[in-house]
Amino acid sequence: MYLKDKYRIAVVAGDVIAEMDASRFRKLDVPTIPVNTGKECHLDAKLVEKALGEIDLDNTDLLIIENVGNLICPVDFKLGEHLRVVIVSVTEGDDIILKHPMIFKTSELAVINKVDIAHAVDVDSEKMRDDILSLNPEVPVILTSKHDWESLETWIGFIESGLEKRTK
Amino acid sequence: MYLKDKYRIAVVAGDVIAEMDASRFRKLDVPTIPVNTGKECHLDAKLVEKALGEIDLDNTDLLIIENVGNLICPVDFKLGEHLRVVIVSVTEGDDIILKHPMIFKTSELAVINKVDIAHAVDVDSEKMRDDILSLNPEVPVILTSKHDWESLETWIGFIESGLEKRTK
Repeated sequence: MYLKDKYRIAVVAGDVIAEMDASRFRKLDVPTIPVNTGKECHLDAKLVEKALGEIDLDNTDLLIIENVGNLICPVDFKLGEHLRVVIVSVTEGDDIILKHPMIFKTSELAVINKVDIAHAVDVDSEKMRDDILSLNPEVPVILTSKHDWESLETWIGFIESGLEKRTK
Repeated sequence: MYLKDKYRIAVVAGDVIAEMDASRFRKLDVPTIPVNTGKECHLDAKLVEKALGEIDLDNTDLLIIENVGNLICPVDFKLGEHLRVVIVSVTEGDDIILKHPMIFKTSELAVINKVDIAHAVDVDSEKMRDDILSLNPEVPVILTSKHDWESLETWIGFIESGLEKRTK
């Protein structure tokens, strides 16, 4: 079951320039506001606030904010989110985590994606998990692949349980 | 032939934290100064100047400065380099270029790496080349793979011809 069949989702899609990610979300029929930061390497609360003016929040169950794709700059800027999720891919190399400790220390959920091609890029996804836990022992770590629906269900389930806690 | 067998190379290796890249260079017996930026997402000229104090420049033919791995922040900061090179990998996705136009517009050489696994990550490396040329029609674009020595020789040749121009 897709999340969007059960919840009313909206997306704020941050990028330095262009609307490639935003148009991917729109293809799924999800209301999406693209936010271009120009030269800035992160979203901030003011940019998000401005985007929220274009979203019907009273009819939104789940708001996803996709920050600029960058593991450094977003660390210091809270966006008012309930859950901070960091997603890395095995294709970024298995030293990507120890090179960017702060984002993993400040996230409440970590997703390691594209684990199906870990071998092709000569990366050990278990080392990546261990590195995250060495920085943040309490954080849940989920390994996902778009070719493994079960792994995506774990990820979806995590969001769902967060939503249910909030609406009780 | 390796560059280091022909030229005296030194490296300034920038990273937010840690010395993983620096220790890779050192394994090759190349004098390397690691520079940690802390929370900053780019090197600047002052950080480079400080590192240069630890390098025997009179006995260096080629100085390589590796910036923090980030396609946004380094754009605006000249480091005194003779040649600005941007390296992306196919594993970053074939929309990575149009999402980060400024770094490709301001670089004098572009390298697309890991082209041997383009198929595994469902990426068209020729599209990536076309995207770079659409932003910067004059820039040389080299496609490389560590498994294809010939492709690396093109890259090495480019550096060599630059060095020879400068020492004439």
